[in-house]
Amino acid sequence: MGQRAYLDWNASAPLRPEARAAMLAAVDISGNPSSIHAEGRAARGLIETARRQVAALVGAEPRNVFFTSGGTEANLLALHPALERGDDKRPHDRLLLSAVEHPSVRSGGRFAADAVEEVPVTADGRVDLVALERRLAERGGRACHRPLVSIMLASNETGVIQPVAAAAEMAHRAGGLVHVDAVQAAGKIPFDINALGADLVTLSGHKLGAPKGVGALIRRDEELHLANPMIKGGGQERGTRAGTENVIGIVGFGAAAAAAASALADERARIAALRDRMEAGLKSISPDAVIFGAGVERLPNTTFFAVPGVKAETALIVLDLDGIAVSSGSACSSGKVAASHVLAAMGVDAALARGAIRASLGFSTSEEDVNCLLAAWNKLVQALPKRTHGMAA
Amino acid sequence: MGQRAYLDWNASAPLRPEARAAMLAAVDISGNPSSIHAEGRAARGLIETARRQVAALVGAEPRNVFFTSGGTEANLLALHPALERGDDKRPHDRLLLSAVEHPSVRSGGRFAADAVEEVPVTADGRVDLVALERRLAERGGRACHRPLVSIMLASNETGVIQPVAAAAEMAHRAGGLVHVDAVQAAGKIPFDINALGADLVTLSGHKLGAPKGVGALIRRDEELHLANPMIKGGGQERGTRAGTENVIGIVGFGAAAAAAASALADERARIAALRDRMEAGLKSISPDAVIFGAGVERLPNTTFFAVPGVKAETALIVLDLDGIAVSSGSACSSGKVAASHVLAAMGVDAALARGAIRASLGFSTSEEDVNCLLAAWNKLVQALPKRTHGMAA
Repeated sequence: MGQRAYLDWNASAPLRPEARAAMLAAVDISGNPSSIHAEGRAARGLIETARRQVAALVGAEPRNVFFTSGGTEANLLALHPALERGDDKRPHDRLLLSAVEHPSVRSGGRFAADAVEEVPVTADGRVDLVALERRLAERGGRACHRPLVSIMLASNETGVIQPVAAAAEMAHRAGGLVHVDAVQAAGKIPFDINALGADLVTLSGHKLGAPKGVGALIRRDEELHLANPMIKGGGQERGTRAGTENVIGIVGFGAAAAAAASALADERARIAALRDRMEAGLKSISPDAVIFGAGVERLPNTTFFAVPGVKAETALIVLDLDGIAVSSGSACSSGKVAASHVLAAMGVDAALARGAIRASLGFSTSEEDVNCLLAAWNKLVQALPKRTHGMAA
Repeated sequence: MGQRAYLDWNASAPLRPEARAAMLAAVDISGNPSSIHAEGRAARGLIETARRQVAALVGAEPRNVFFTSGGTEANLLALHPALERGDDKRPHDRLLLSAVEHPSVRSGGRFAADAVEEVPVTADGRVDLVALERRLAERGGRACHRPLVSIMLASNETGVIQPVAAAAEMAHRAGGLVHVDAVQAAGKIPFDINALGADLVTLSGHKLGAPKGVGALIRRDEELHLANPMIKGGGQERGTRAGTENVIGIVGFGAAAAAAASALADERARIAALRDRMEAGLKSISPDAVIFGAGVERLPNTTFFAVPGVKAETALIVLDLDGIAVSSGSACSSGKVAASHVLAAMGVDAALARGAIRASLGFSTSEEDVNCLLAAWNKLVQALPKRTHGMAA
């Protein structure tokens, strides 16, 4: 597949060279990180280096990083009614989510289904802060009101950046705690866990150039207690996450986080320019193209668009055969092309939403890749008019 | 650490060359296995190859293999009251465990603490089948009696092989289901999930030469429903385990399982001979050495022994400085040397148990490694007499 243009970085990013090198160097570390002999200490040392690297990416202390098997597990670890801060052991009675969260957050974590409430987003895909404020004020007769609010930093589908700091301030004022799924934002835009005001942040390795199968839940400070581990049995990750650590994956995660952090400013500008060129090209080929969330601040690498009359299912297959990998939105599910809950929450017409295609870029995306997409798109729409009605049916 | 003798394979095995080669070949597969484009299908293909390889190791169908982040997660996924077989949706009211299970099983999985009961072992470390039969017959006034029985195939500490097939028959006769933690047995002795009569089997990659951070829960047939996923959100692993798959880890797991299966007979004989020579050597240096479980069938690679007057904590440090990696039993916890619950369950005197040292061998263990251990042990015990009392205090 050497000739292909991979434009599905939000689904999974290619491994960063720095991650590959670090993983290769670690591959013959045989020790179990819990073992006290030299081989065990060597493995432990690699994990602690990675912990510092991942912590630095979000301005956290290394001791507040807990490695998991990925973003999904980190989200489920975070979303528990018994999350505690300081001596306040009152359980969280409600989980408030934005309507555009990732499926692992929308599953409600370890909350009962009837304790989970969705907060709407506006037409541009940003969480509706007025609605959030109203929800936070609704005590519904509860004596003890302590909401947990979970809002992603940037949407995996639209790339829209959420007003997390403002939401966190509201939530804290209402006595709540805040979890931020920063899986898609990390490595693409700079942010700091303290500036965000997040109590907990989720990261996923493979979205920023680490291997698949590793992630982290990061707390702002030690006052936050993850009182209910999900994976129990050993004392790993200071009792918060049992099971022998994915040493090679964690090493790759650390190296990728460090590389992403140091390259961020340059990559961000370069990728944003490529993305803008791609969007201009799409608009020039298909003047009726709709780019979702284009009116608000987005990640520099993401374009989520639709052209009336073009069905995503067909377009993805045609583009794939033409050497272009894009997607119809989230890849996290079973591979089937389903209607986007994000676009539905934004009030996008269902027929238009069925045409939604996501192109997402990354550190090794070239101008050539963007040209390939534009050429293939042009070919696709040129072939369309004679069968538009059939495709849109 | 090139000159060292690594004899702690039960804590974590070095990567098999076949696993390393397969992982290197897979490292540039960027696709998300849930994506429908060529890059996604390539990643999916690697996972399905690995699924066949892991299934073959235990005589299961590939579709009955569910990948997890390791043995601990697989054990917790298995141990749930709502585990269903066929149309029988009665919840399991009790979880019966042997007293020598791994901490991740002893945590009781997702059973309430008061539903978990330990079944004792005999002095040789084998589960007491008479006691199990009695426990299975005790209905304690329950209308619906449906126990889940969890027994490991081989002990990580002593290497003692448990009478799993007999226990499974008893459990099934009593209307129960059976989970077998085969983490330490897999790749060391041949077994078949059907012959064992296990409903569910747990495997861990890194104990058989795959990387750390990958494992599997395997069911005997499709009648078994894992009705309560622990990690929820996406549709991965047919809805049983959400989260983007650890592709590189799974590829390594598959390759290691295939290599272990094909080398098993040869390795088993070679390693058993080395282990026997090691035990003979230890006995010759320390005639009062006690080898735990020596009277019953054990894994070919494991020796768990103690010499009165030698404290494990001191011996491990001295041996480590001398270039030998061994352990005091399980490495799965926080790295501290704690009293072995396995030896306590076997009724071993607490003073003797404090001296317990585990040496475990694997495919690349050489005669030289064993010679190093014996020479270092000889040096250690020669230095001992003058400070025996201090050390044993």
